[in-house]
Amino acid sequence: MISSSRRLPRSAVIREVGLRDGLQSIATILPSEHKREWIRGAYDAGQREIEVGSFVPARLLPQLADTAELVAFAKTLPGLFVSVLVPNLRGAENAIAAEADLMIVPLSASHAHSLANLRKTPDDVVAELGRIRAARDAAGSKTLIEGGVGTAFGCTIQGRVEKSEVLRLMQALLDAGADRVSIADTVGYADPGMVRDLFEDAVKIAGDRFWCGHFHDTRGLGLANVYAALEVGVARFDACLAGIGGCPHAPGASGNVSTEDLAYMLGSMGIATGVDIEQLLALRARVAQWLAGETLHGSLWQAGLPKTFGLAQAVAA
Amino acid sequence: MISSSRRLPRSAVIREVGLRDGLQSIATILPSEHKREWIRGAYDAGQREIEVGSFVPARLLPQLADTAELVAFAKTLPGLFVSVLVPNLRGAENAIAAEADLMIVPLSASHAHSLANLRKTPDDVVAELGRIRAARDAAGSKTLIEGGVGTAFGCTIQGRVEKSEVLRLMQALLDAGADRVSIADTVGYADPGMVRDLFEDAVKIAGDRFWCGHFHDTRGLGLANVYAALEVGVARFDACLAGIGGCPHAPGASGNVSTEDLAYMLGSMGIATGVDIEQLLALRARVAQWLAGETLHGSLWQAGLPKTFGLAQAVAA
Repeated sequence: MISSSRRLPRSAVIREVGLRDGLQSIATILPSEHKREWIRGAYDAGQREIEVGSFVPARLLPQLADTAELVAFAKTLPGLFVSVLVPNLRGAENAIAAEADLMIVPLSASHAHSLANLRKTPDDVVAELGRIRAARDAAGSKTLIEGGVGTAFGCTIQGRVEKSEVLRLMQALLDAGADRVSIADTVGYADPGMVRDLFEDAVKIAGDRFWCGHFHDTRGLGLANVYAALEVGVARFDACLAGIGGCPHAPGASGNVSTEDLAYMLGSMGIATGVDIEQLLALRARVAQWLAGETLHGSLWQAGLPKTFGLAQAVAA
Repeated sequence: MISSSRRLPRSAVIREVGLRDGLQSIATILPSEHKREWIRGAYDAGQREIEVGSFVPARLLPQLADTAELVAFAKTLPGLFVSVLVPNLRGAENAIAAEADLMIVPLSASHAHSLANLRKTPDDVVAELGRIRAARDAAGSKTLIEGGVGTAFGCTIQGRVEKSEVLRLMQALLDAGADRVSIADTVGYADPGMVRDLFEDAVKIAGDRFWCGHFHDTRGLGLANVYAALEVGVARFDACLAGIGGCPHAPGASGNVSTEDLAYMLGSMGIATGVDIEQLLALRARVAQWLAGETLHGSLWQAGLPKTFGLAQAVAA
């Protein structure tokens, strides 16, 4: 049995990635007007970190072609920390020009997945992050760089991914100039034991520069994995409203953990997120209308908040 | 952060309760022939504990009217531990006559829920369990008695349920003659923090007589709650194939944690269950055909097992 002495984080950040990881994985192209309404709605519900898009060529991901415009809009909301994904130096130059607060450089720890998705080896990506860092510094830009290590628990192409390789690549990203690193279970292979094991070592290596856990709910373990990460002190998680998204290499799979279920779990546990869940559920209903025909996920929207929700927190306060 | 020294259970039991908790909550009345096929299929897939039904009047739950017949069938399968639910002494007499291995006496820690569902106070149920114990002993029966404390994390009618009351009632059940006790989150109000907190104390009180954790996935936290219970040494969990079931007082809510997702999580973590997941998924497909039109749950059936599943276990063995 584990010792009963435990200190879970007192607060945690839910980074909304539905506008990027979610929308890039579904067929519907959401009009910019609706994306702005989504960003504003998430902001009004209390979310303060949003990944608004990805600087990739529009021919590859027409769903995200309006990313520069969305960064500009998001930056008008006071206190909102605006992230974008950038696959390469070209994307990073766009992110720097747009004055995004943070750019995420994705690396796939699975060599096979990396070649299939990015046409680069993981170490090529490390080198590219070094060039991005140089460009950022040369521009005098304040845009932070996050190196995201994906397929960290295995992948659908290669299968097994060694923990030592994940940690080696994470260290390499830091050495190449990443301000932050994060770990993603891109295809939903992680279980709570694996998460605890890997994240404990990752936090030891990266300290405060370990930024975020990114879990997919492909096999129903998304929130159990979040809980395991909380136990080793990780306090920032990616999530998609309505659990949209998935992975092109994992057909039929559900997407990221759903923002609303995650907000509920954290809130129920007395971990402050600043998120108003009722407002979030109202936003989910609007987004669900826009995405009619797409498969959505999550449980809370159907069951509603427990009658007791907020009581424990009120007593504790 | 929690200390990294930890000993999760090396093996765990998944008790199939779909034939009782699942079927009693849905409209379809499954023919006995299909129920026998389900029991045999679960057995063939490696499950060794099954709750086959409930000894309640057939006019109340026509879905479960064939419970005596199912106990008789299940007992023909070597090594299968056969459980039934009994709401009162009358039901217990039937369970004893049928020579069930274990009878579960449900108690609702929420007074309001207890009166609404059982028309008794929780302490009336404790007294009834005392009468059941006397009858069992007088009959020289070997049928074990489990006292199950439900709505242990709150309920949809009363709201808050105090932990001290849950523990008081659990102790009272033991004092009245229960051989085993268990705790159920009947309406899906629990979070991993609550589970750990309550189960840690429950295990301290009941020791080896603490038998089982019963979680509903109403708000998506079912498996996270199982993980929290594993951390304090609990190693037996109720589950329903395809996550069927729910609660009449929680409309739209999903049912118990799904057997197949739970078997996957435990298996992935290297916790032995004896369950062959591919066989379980094949059984799920058959049950899903019989229950056409009912809402089913669970994730694994759609995504399939990870390519890496079994590798870690093979390495560890």
